[in-house]
Order: sequence, then structure tokens, then C-alpha cells
Amino acid sequence: MTLQRERVCIIGSGNWGTAVAKIIGENVTKHSQVFEPQVQQWVFEEDYQGKPLTQVINATHENPKYLPGIRLADNIHAEPDLVKACSDSTVLVFVLPHQFVRGVCDDLVGKVNPNVKAISLVKGLEIKPDGITLFSEEIGRRLQIEEVAALSGANIADEVAREQFCETTIGSRSEAHGQLFHQLFDTPYFRANVIRDYVGVELCGALKNVVAVAAGISDGLNYGSNTKAALIRLGLMEMRKFGQTFFGGVEDTTFFESCGVADLITTCAGGRNRKVAEAFARTGKPIDVLERELLNGQKLQGSLTAIEVYQFLSARKMTNEFPFFDAVYQILYQGAPLDTIVKL
Amino acid sequence: MTLQRERVCIIGSGNWGTAVAKIIGENVTKHSQVFEPQVQQWVFEEDYQGKPLTQVINATHENPKYLPGIRLADNIHAEPDLVKACSDSTVLVFVLPHQFVRGVCDDLVGKVNPNVKAISLVKGLEIKPDGITLFSEEIGRRLQIEEVAALSGANIADEVAREQFCETTIGSRSEAHGQLFHQLFDTPYFRANVIRDYVGVELCGALKNVVAVAAGISDGLNYGSNTKAALIRLGLMEMRKFGQTFFGGVEDTTFFESCGVADLITTCAGGRNRKVAEAFARTGKPIDVLERELLNGQKLQGSLTAIEVYQFLSARKMTNEFPFFDAVYQILYQGAPLDTIVKL
Repeated sequence: MTLQRERVCIIGSGNWGTAVAKIIGENVTKHSQVFEPQVQQWVFEEDYQGKPLTQVINATHENPKYLPGIRLADNIHAEPDLVKACSDSTVLVFVLPHQFVRGVCDDLVGKVNPNVKAISLVKGLEIKPDGITLFSEEIGRRLQIEEVAALSGANIADEVAREQFCETTIGSRSEAHGQLFHQLFDTPYFRANVIRDYVGVELCGALKNVVAVAAGISDGLNYGSNTKAALIRLGLMEMRKFGQTFFGGVEDTTFFESCGVADLITTCAGGRNRKVAEAFARTGKPIDVLERELLNGQKLQGSLTAIEVYQFLSARKMTNEFPFFDAVYQILYQGAPLDTIVKL
Repeated sequence: MTLQRERVCIIGSGNWGTAVAKIIGENVTKHSQVFEPQVQQWVFEEDYQGKPLTQVINATHENPKYLPGIRLADNIHAEPDLVKACSDSTVLVFVLPHQFVRGVCDDLVGKVNPNVKAISLVKGLEIKPDGITLFSEEIGRRLQIEEVAALSGANIADEVAREQFCETTIGSRSEAHGQLFHQLFDTPYFRANVIRDYVGVELCGALKNVVAVAAGISDGLNYGSNTKAALIRLGLMEMRKFGQTFFGGVEDTTFFESCGVADLITTCAGGRNRKVAEAFARTGKPIDVLERELLNGQKLQGSLTAIEVYQFLSARKMTNEFPFFDAVYQILYQGAPLDTIVKL
């Protein structure tokens, strides 16, 4: 084969980024006719027990700070210089906390291969009263990359790293890119389905957290499993309606994918959004107090998204059409009774 | 109004039949322009503490044997004579264990109103190698009733009786009948959605139990919530494929209803099918031994349906196309390793 092989760079090295690096390291070796053997991983440099983290990773093939005990393939090279890590790459995998996406993109403007392909594993959306930003599209706009794909699913990083079977969904408008990303991510224990509806993939990943808040309220009220299942279903239906109302291309079948129903089930069974909402229902303490007590002051994604969705709908006078999302907001922030959630 | 009002008879008086009687008793009063106030309930006569059960129900407005502590409306009249209960009725609600359906229908042949409307709340299907029988259709065939409807959902009888919020799905080909059944069943705490796809409603109610077996195996192997959610999703997809392959009219959206995704979530979270399968995975004891130990010798629905589905598929040389259902059968009855379920 004389075709140019793809050179992959992973941008990010937290818990999820490292779990993904493990998979990518193995898959580029498996598909050696498609990918160059060496993979760059941009790691935000920090100190780990007196040494730079990138040095530790490159020496031990493990990220002891964010995913201890999991060995990465030898072909993953941790690189502290973002531009150096990316400039020669033909495939970029964005797996960063969402607040860092813009800064990273700005640093890369004009520095990436003009035909680079990209995929976003960034969690969440940016919902403002005047519109919704998908991170795949934001990355594409800033770096002038067409058709940035997205990946989301019922994927708890630690379980994926321990090779516990699960699935994921890749949304890619381009079929060719979809196939490429399938080769990059799919393994027997991490099964990737490729669909075209990247918007649905990203929407599900954000809106599920609002549904998990409702599930937590149900648990906090000691409602039974009938009620909780009904709320999960109603939430799923409102996610679907939100997608159909504000994004024409969102498809019904997307909600059957791992990014839809499976991620929703996992998120409503365990997870911090459900847990903090249960504590809210049991104790009556405000969310910001619980964030301090239970999350060391970190913001809870579900309650934040509930506010953003409310403001977005409110700006369009459409809160009535989304009674489930509205109820979650009213309960969390407007003192509505907890059982409003079952009286839509 | 000079229109003839509907006279309702409930056929069955177990746990679920009694919970349903509570709802129907209240709804006929609420919709008094549509329904006659008095509701007949056929109760299989048995002794309750020295008295006939029907007498106890009519005196106390409670069924202390099958739903103790729940008061029924005064307009529910328990009747031990099946033909007497039904002969004057215009609406029949079948809510019996499936093994009694044929006998009851045979006793009613020629004895029911020729224009009677009927709905089946019978759980399960009859799957034989040569075909699948829906109980709605079986009732219709035996009693010459057109368009028998079906009702199923995430509805644990005790939770419904205690008025804990949940939803249910009514499948009715006839729109007019669908509206009538909506008035008969819908309450603020038991929300009924009417769809046309009665086949999908009944299929979901039976096949979910096979998926719950897989969920129980996952729990028994101590797999995490990612894996369990993936299995629930794969099971849902195979339920959908089964419906589409063998029943043309089954619709995608049916699986978004309470009878689909919500019932599946409840059944895979708790329930006896999940529990016995977990014990199977942990102890390695055969299913029939566990049925004796955990269910007083009652048959487990999920394992029974797994055999029936396997035989049905096998007769068509199609087990390969349903790897999830096949794996459940192979694990339960052919000694396949437990982790076959994640190696489809």
C-alpha cells in the first residue's frame, strides 16, 4: 500500500481521554494498513510526585494521576506541546472538559493539516438563550474542519478501561470518516455503532443529565421502580422532542443507540446527577450547598443544563411545550413541590 | 343523552385484576355519560377464612386475598358466575393468568353480546414452533370479537394500587375503542397512551422477560452499569427486530412507549426474572432447582419464553439472526459460558 496512513493525535488526558488512549493505541496497531503506529497524546503538563506527568506517562505507559493501574500501549506518546502534538496529524480526537475547547482550538488555528479529520468526545452542549452550540460544530468552525464527528454512549471511563463490555455511538455525516473512526474506536469490549446523526449524539449526552435529576428526585421521594421508569421514559420523549423541534435532522432511531437509551439508563441508575438530586429531595438543601458538600464545589451538570434549557425555552416562550424540563427547573430553583415531576 | 351506556365486566380478580378494578370503578363514575355505574367483576370463587371470596369482596369492598389493604369503589360487584357476569356486558376486560384464557373463552362462546368490545391485559404470548399466538387475537377468534385491544406497561400492581405515578400503553386498531379504553383506564396517576400497534404492545410484554434474564446474568457476574445498560439496549433492539421480522405492523415508536422502554427498565431493575437469573449466574444451579427454591416451584416466565423463542427461531433456521435471544437460551440450557452474553 502506498496510501498515506493516518496520524492520530488525542487531545486531552483526563480519565476518559486516557481510557480512550488505551483503545486507540491498540487499534492503530491492529489496523496498521490504515494508521501510523505512533499516536500523539497532548497532555496538559503538570507535576506528578516531583516529575512532569508526560515524562511519567512515557516512562511507565500509565497515567497514574487520572487512570491509575491501567497500562497504555507503548505507541502512545505523551506530548506537553499542543501544537507539536497536533501539527503533523491527520486525525484529531478531542476529549477535553468543555471549558477548555475554545482555548485549545484558538491555539491551533492555522497550525493543523488543512485536510485533518476530527471527532469530538467533549461532553455537553453550550446552551444560551440565543442558541445552542454543539462542540463538534464549534471545533469545526474554529479550525475550519468540515464534518467533525461526535462520540457518546453509556461509557463510564473506569469500566471501559477495565474492558467491561459496553457500546458507544459515533455520529458522522461523512460515511468515510465514520468508517475510519469505527476502526479507531471499535473493539470487542467497546462496540461502536456509526450513525449519521451527530447532532442527536451530542444532544443526548447533555440532556440525559436533566433526566437523571428527575430520576434522583423520584428516588429521594421513595417512589417505586414503576414511577422512576415512567420518568425516564417521559424524559427520553422530551429529549426527542427537543431534538426534533430545534434540530431538523435528529432521528428517532438515534434514541435507540447507546448514546440514547443505554446512556440514559446508566445515568439514571447511578451517577452524580441522580445522587445529588436524591440528596436535594431528601434534605431540601439548595443545589449549590450540595455541590459544596458532595462535589467539592464542582458544578453539577444536570442542574446547570436544566437552567440553560429553561432559559433557552423561556426566550422562545416554549416552556409549556416541555413540561418535564420545566418541572425539573421549577423544583430545583423556584421552590416548586417535589412531586411536580409526576404532575405534568 | 339517550345513547346506550357501556356496561363493563372485569374478567379476573388476582393482584393485577384487583388493582385494575380499583381504577375502573373510579373511572366509570367519572365518565358517567359513557359508562353504566355498576361494574361486574368475575371472581373465581374460593374460600377466604370460611366465607366465599365474592361475599367478602362485596361486603368489605376489598379483595383481602390478592390485594389486601386497598379499597375498591362500591360500584364493583364481585360475581362468581362467569356467564352471569359477562352476558349483559358491552365491554370485557380480560385480566387473567394466560393458562385460563382458553377455558374462560370456551365457557363464554355464544353467551356474550355480539357487539361487545374487549381488551386483553393478559401477560405473555403463546410461542410454539409453528407460530405465535397473541392473547388479544385468541380471545377475538374464540368469541368472534373484532379488534380486541391490549394493555401493557411498567405497571407493578401494588404500586398502581397505591396510586404511585406510572404510565401504561393501550394498543387498539380501532380509534373509537381506543378512546373508550382511555376513558376506562386513564387517571392522573396511571397515564394511558393509546397507540394502534396492539401487536407491539403484547410482544414487548412477553419478550422483556428474556432481556431481564440477561440483565440478571450481568448482575450475577458483577458487571457494571455500562454493561447492563448495553445488554438492555441490545435486548430492546432484538425485541424490535423480532417484531419487525415476524409481524409487519410493529412500529419503532411502540418501543418508546411505557410497554417498551419503561417496562424493560423496571423489569431489568427489579423483578423475579432478573433475580432468578442473577442467582443462576452466582450459584450455577439449574433453573428448575432455582424455581423450586426461590419461586415455590412456579415457572419463571423469562426462561420459559427464552425456550419458546429459541424453538420458534430454530424451526425457521434463524437463531443466528437473533444472537441475543440465542445466547440467553444457550447459557440457561446448553451450558454455554455466562459471558457468552457479551460476546455476541
